[in-house]
Amino acid sequence: MIVDSAVYRHGVRIPVDCSSHDYPALRAAAAAEGGFVWLGLYQPSGVELGEVAEAFGLHRLAVEDAVKAHQRPKLEQYGDDLFLVLKTLWYVDEDDAVETGEINMFVGHDFVITVRHGRGSQLQAARHYLEHTEHVLTKGPVSVVYAVCDTVVDAYLEVVEDLQEDVDEVEESVFSDARTKDSARIYTLKREIAEVRRAVMPLREPMRRFASGTVVGVENEEAAPFFRDVMDHLTQAAEAVDTLDQLLSTAFDAHVAAISVQQNDDMRRISAGAALVVVPTLIAGVYGMNFEHMPELQWSLGYPFALLLMGGVAAVLFWFFKRSGWL
Amino acid sequence: MIVDSAVYRHGVRIPVDCSSHDYPALRAAAAAEGGFVWLGLYQPSGVELGEVAEAFGLHRLAVEDAVKAHQRPKLEQYGDDLFLVLKTLWYVDEDDAVETGEINMFVGHDFVITVRHGRGSQLQAARHYLEHTEHVLTKGPVSVVYAVCDTVVDAYLEVVEDLQEDVDEVEESVFSDARTKDSARIYTLKREIAEVRRAVMPLREPMRRFASGTVVGVENEEAAPFFRDVMDHLTQAAEAVDTLDQLLSTAFDAHVAAISVQQNDDMRRISAGAALVVVPTLIAGVYGMNFEHMPELQWSLGYPFALLLMGGVAAVLFWFFKRSGWL
Amino acid sequence: MIVDSAVYRHGVRIPVDCSSHDYPALRAAAAAEGGFVWLGLYQPSGVELGEVAEAFGLHRLAVEDAVKAHQRPKLEQYGDDLFLVLKTLWYVDEDDAVETGEINMFVGHDFVITVRHGRGSQLQAARHYLEHTEHVLTKGPVSVVYAVCDTVVDAYLEVVEDLQEDVDEVEESVFSDARTKDSARIYTLKREIAEVRRAVMPLREPMRRFASGTVVGVENEEAAPFFRDVMDHLTQAAEAVDTLDQLLSTAFDAHVAAISVQQNDDMRRISAGAALVVVPTLIAGVYGMNFEHMPELQWSLGYPFALLLMGGVAAVLFWFFKRSGWL
Amino acid sequence: MIVDSAVYRHGVRIPVDCSSHDYPALRAAAAAEGGFVWLGLYQPSGVELGEVAEAFGLHRLAVEDAVKAHQRPKLEQYGDDLFLVLKTLWYVDEDDAVETGEINMFVGHDFVITVRHGRGSQLQAARHYLEHTEHVLTKGPVSVVYAVCDTVVDAYLEVVEDLQEDVDEVEESVFSDARTKDSARIYTLKREIAEVRRAVMPLREPMRRFASGTVVGVENEEAAPFFRDVMDHLTQAAEAVDTLDQLLSTAFDAHVAAISVQQNDDMRRISAGAALVVVPTLIAGVYGMNFEHMPELQWSLGYPFALLLMGGVAAVLFWFFKRSGWL
Amino acid sequence: MIVDSAVYRHGVRIPVDCSSHDYPALRAAAAAEGGFVWLGLYQPSGVELGEVAEAFGLHRLAVEDAVKAHQRPKLEQYGDDLFLVLKTLWYVDEDDAVETGEINMFVGHDFVITVRHGRGSQLQAARHYLEHTEHVLTKGPVSVVYAVCDTVVDAYLEVVEDLQEDVDEVEESVFSDARTKDSARIYTLKREIAEVRRAVMPLREPMRRFASGTVVGVENEEAAPFFRDVMDHLTQAAEAVDTLDQLLSTAFDAHVAAISVQQNDDMRRISAGAALVVVPTLIAGVYGMNFEHMPELQWSLGYPFALLLMGGVAAVLFWFFKRSGWL
Repeated sequence: MIVDSAVYRHGVRIPVDCSSHDYPALRAAAAAEGGFVWLGLYQPSGVELGEVAEAFGLHRLAVEDAVKAHQRPKLEQYGDDLFLVLKTLWYVDEDDAVETGEINMFVGHDFVITVRHGRGSQLQAARHYLEHTEHVLTKGPVSVVYAVCDTVVDAYLEVVEDLQEDVDEVEESVFSDARTKDSARIYTLKREIAEVRRAVMPLREPMRRFASGTVVGVENEEAAPFFRDVMDHLTQAAEAVDTLDQLLSTAFDAHVAAISVQQNDDMRRISAGAALVVVPTLIAGVYGMNFEHMPELQWSLGYPFALLLMGGVAAVLFWFFKRSGWL
Repeated sequence: MIVDSAVYRHGVRIPVDCSSHDYPALRAAAAAEGGFVWLGLYQPSGVELGEVAEAFGLHRLAVEDAVKAHQRPKLEQYGDDLFLVLKTLWYVDEDDAVETGEINMFVGHDFVITVRHGRGSQLQAARHYLEHTEHVLTKGPVSVVYAVCDTVVDAYLEVVEDLQEDVDEVEESVFSDARTKDSARIYTLKREIAEVRRAVMPLREPMRRFASGTVVGVENEEAAPFFRDVMDHLTQAAEAVDTLDQLLSTAFDAHVAAISVQQNDDMRRISAGAALVVVPTLIAGVYGMNFEHMPELQWSLGYPFALLLMGGVAAVLFWFFKRSGWL
Repeated sequence: MIVDSAVYRHGVRIPVDCSSHDYPALRAAAAAEGGFVWLGLYQPSGVELGEVAEAFGLHRLAVEDAVKAHQRPKLEQYGDDLFLVLKTLWYVDEDDAVETGEINMFVGHDFVITVRHGRGSQLQAARHYLEHTEHVLTKGPVSVVYAVCDTVVDAYLEVVEDLQEDVDEVEESVFSDARTKDSARIYTLKREIAEVRRAVMPLREPMRRFASGTVVGVENEEAAPFFRDVMDHLTQAAEAVDTLDQLLSTAFDAHVAAISVQQNDDMRRISAGAALVVVPTLIAGVYGMNFEHMPELQWSLGYPFALLLMGGVAAVLFWFFKRSGWL
Repeated sequence: MIVDSAVYRHGVRIPVDCSSHDYPALRAAAAAEGGFVWLGLYQPSGVELGEVAEAFGLHRLAVEDAVKAHQRPKLEQYGDDLFLVLKTLWYVDEDDAVETGEINMFVGHDFVITVRHGRGSQLQAARHYLEHTEHVLTKGPVSVVYAVCDTVVDAYLEVVEDLQEDVDEVEESVFSDARTKDSARIYTLKREIAEVRRAVMPLREPMRRFASGTVVGVENEEAAPFFRDVMDHLTQAAEAVDTLDQLLSTAFDAHVAAISVQQNDDMRRISAGAALVVVPTLIAGVYGMNFEHMPELQWSLGYPFALLLMGGVAAVLFWFFKRSGWL
Repeated sequence: MIVDSAVYRHGVRIPVDCSSHDYPALRAAAAAEGGFVWLGLYQPSGVELGEVAEAFGLHRLAVEDAVKAHQRPKLEQYGDDLFLVLKTLWYVDEDDAVETGEINMFVGHDFVITVRHGRGSQLQAARHYLEHTEHVLTKGPVSVVYAVCDTVVDAYLEVVEDLQEDVDEVEESVFSDARTKDSARIYTLKREIAEVRRAVMPLREPMRRFASGTVVGVENEEAAPFFRDVMDHLTQAAEAVDTLDQLLSTAFDAHVAAISVQQNDDMRRISAGAALVVVPTLIAGVYGMNFEHMPELQWSLGYPFALLLMGGVAAVLFWFFKRSGWL
């Protein structure tokens, strides 16, 4: 599905009078005076992408990747063209889960083709930003690469913040006095963090290359600081995710320690409770003995005395265990 | 055993009129116009391989390796010839186990000799692919290297997916309420993952060299993107395997925590059950005392009263423990 | 808010007769004879910083970073100007917590602009040091970078010392015989250490660059030893923090082991206590049997004998368990 | 002690008519036509080695190392001479232990001196191999280095296989239902593995240097593939040892989990057993009550009824616990 | 405090006729014919060191470091002079503890100044060695650097051996059947090992630089092998310390496992002990029942029979539990 197709020149979108499917015409319109086409596709079929590939001369392997999706983030150089794969991330509040999509970008000197898989509206945001920031858009196709990477990476930081909140909740739960079952929660969070890492880590190398101006065809001196900025946010996300992962590990260990402590507390409570029963049972046993000469047995108040004795001993034990913190 | 021997030229298989054992003739047939021989052997004896080695001038050490098998994946350069060792992997559903085989490749400018050990049909698949993809086969022996590596690495990804399913099962089992014995399962999976890693990790360096075009004799500019593709899948497999390993470690920790929690739950259940017995025993003890003046003993309904008292106390305790979650 | 604005030349502060807001005049005053302006801002608004940016030609992206704060430590090169981000740390005794602030520095050949976020008075200290150390100040703007980095990094070392004390306390608590709940404390300390690490680790690369004289515009041979000194303190902080983290992990493991040992001790104590009750209960049971021929029952001292027997057995058990260390 | 001293030329051992102690004569005999002396020493005294050192001009520090032994594997360059230290490993079946020895080699352009410490016959094997493999021996002193390294490293692989078997045994023991004390066994194996690692890891750098032909004096193009082969086996040993170490860690964790599970099983079994006693005790207590009106007491079959009741209840409980898996 | 001040020329100590405080005279005496001064200071005051600094032109920052001590090991280049910081280690038997001191060295082409903090006599040993080893001392100031580093690093190896013994003791204690409290011991040892690591690890870089001859002013070809020897011992210490640390971690895990096993053994022993009491209690309860028709009660030997029954049952249980290993 074609989401949008536009021609940009000197930093502004220029109107074209051909259909959005007429790729050669679009390209021709762009060619004059250093303009470029930005074609946005959403989950295109093999056939759709095939036509685009032919019109813009895209490399066979890159096209295969863009159809299949499920690639890892990477930057490929095919002749003068670039092929960039990004993972998109967003946090779904209902499920407390991180979802992933994918953006594939083909970049030539006079075109950018973005192929999006999965939900998320990052590309509209990027297009909107660029169309209102002439001084960036005027740099040509590389500005689209920057804008897309920037919005995608900013979304990573948001996801990391959401995960941070989840970790804070887990932390609170682990150190509360309540008996909590945190290990499943921690496991799930660690899975999500692994998901984020799979998006963030492999993207660092491509961004580093853009930031150091070593990508062939994008040696643009002025572009580098912008990509360094993206790189910086990416590093921030990567470090935050590492820290969260370590905190979760520590929290898990604390959770296990808490289980042991509770086990111990329970054992003490149970033992104290048992004492309240077995000691009176001993007293009852004593007065159940069949000696002929047991003065208490003949007392008229012997029975209430025995009951009071049991109750009294139990009360003393209760007080004693309460004081020692066992009950 | 010779599986197949064929001569290729300009991307197509050409018929030869000599026996598949007549190596010099095959080579001569190939030599004209930049063709090459692809000889496929399956677990050849030392003698068989010796003849081949003589006909194609293979290096003594490489031949030794190919006979012994049990090498680690590697790429060796012997003069102008290459020697490549790959591990093949496949998942055996019946045993939930990963099995390994080995492929050794000798590559010269006019020949490719593949020596296979262990089960698995990856080579047929590669030969079939090549014979139907002229534009790749036309690149000469390197196309065979690519096709074999590609099919082998794709098989890695399938194995990783099967392991992913196993890990999902373990995960479900760990977090179910049932008492499960997951540690043996997790251990076995970790062994299999170590197996996969032994195949995947050492192959990265050879693939990196092909992908960057630094293998002497294969500086072919057009081949690099194809090997970068393989490299990419390999990296995907490596990262997936690392993630699985870490998830299994976390799952194992969660399993141990679950054992502790169950221990605690059992202790509470046992204690509550014990209370249901010892408290009535105390009551029985009380009415077993031998005081002369115990009014209840003379009551005509004393005995049912005592039984009801025991039952009632037990019922109250039962309700109490049920409410507190101990039973 | 402008905290201070001054012009320095030949290592001394020179008086200026313009307002501290009149940036062009300040810059003009400094320009003569290789002087420079040092402008100190505290949590400036976007507008305030905008004016400064215009007057000194600061890069748009750097200014955005300085307004937002929450950057990670880094050194950016924009044309001839430098942009340096530092995290400041201080230890709040009341909360046993590490707090963080941020300093952003813009450095040109004739100006230094410091933008501070959060508490902490490190900049006054740096300015005071410089104004009293002519031989350093005379090196120009780089001397300000050094003085600020030096005071910031010295503060890291103080924070590390405070954390060291906390770790010592935890250690003492873990190995005391008292039942302590150290896991929450350890978790919190690990969080603080992660905080410190986030400030220290990324700063090493910028300091390394200054120390090796590879920062464009600061190739000053004489400055390098000073930055090597800062680098050294930074490395000391980084290593100390790593050691503390590992010690805490070990202390945590020891804490968990201590819980197990206590559990075991409790179980033994409980069992010994139970024996003191159940053995006399057995004796009482024996004399509660209804045999016709039990000589003790007819003894006139049978009852005291039974009680003494119970007491005696209990005393022997008590002594026995005491000796074995169970009580 | 001199084990063997021989002169080799053009790949064969040539007879000499001087005593094996007459080093200058040996050297002179070798000098002609590119031959070389191979002198084999076993735990020589300082004096013995001193004479050799003088005759062949060995470096003082290297000689000190060779006398002391207990060096770590390394390759040193002293002028044109090489000094190589290797650790030898062998597995002693009786003790299930790995023992270590040491080989020091001095290599010049016309001599090789091997100094062996500790048991193990690797040098005879190497000498035997060389004297029967003319095409290798003909390469001069470097062929001795290769042959020794090859046999030493092959012995590592054998040791690793023996350890693999031990690990398999531990694994079986850990996952058996028997109560095993595996932690001491695992600890010992980890110590042995650390021993192996100390031999294997530092040797990789010297082998890498030989394999890449960057050792001064051994730039021999033809030697490199041979050392690459050794390097390969060394890497295999290193990887196998790492895998074993990780498997042992996992097995240890599984062992600890098994202890917990057994603890839980025991607790359940004990509780069930206790129930079989305390419930009949309650029944006995009931019929021990002294109510005047307890019909069962007058029954002539009351007593057998009570015993049957106890037995029946115990049987029901037994069946119940059996079914729930507690007994 | 000045410990010793001497002038060396051509490898021997030459007498001087000036006081040991007259630095310019010493330096002048040394200057002729390539001699050098070696000045040994012990915990000098700021003033003392100030005079020395002036006489030999030491760098301000280095002098500050030497007064403060508590630096991390490092090698600094100030112009043509070197500044080297070493940590000294020694093992105090009484406390089973590792103590640390510090040596600072200033090295110029005609002087060496050693500043020692803390106990330890390594410098005397070094001076003694040099004055008796002319062929080393003759190399000039670098020979002092070598001798000091060599003795300091040899002391590391001794400390490591002492720690090895401690670890062996811990190991024995952990795997003994006695109930031991090893976790505090292990924790302390890990702290000491961290201490050693702090001395050893940062020294590797300076030694590597000396060993590879890349220190400006010490490119002396002949010195490199000596420093490679030191480097080698340092690496040995570093590796030994790593191995010890890992062994301690494994020993700690084994200790925790041992606690669990003991817990389990205790539980079994307690349960078996309890059975010996509760089963006779049940029998007593049975004969305490009030049935009219209980033949045993009328037997004249009923009571001894009951006691024998109790004793017999207890004996059987005792034998049974003994056989099963529960007692």
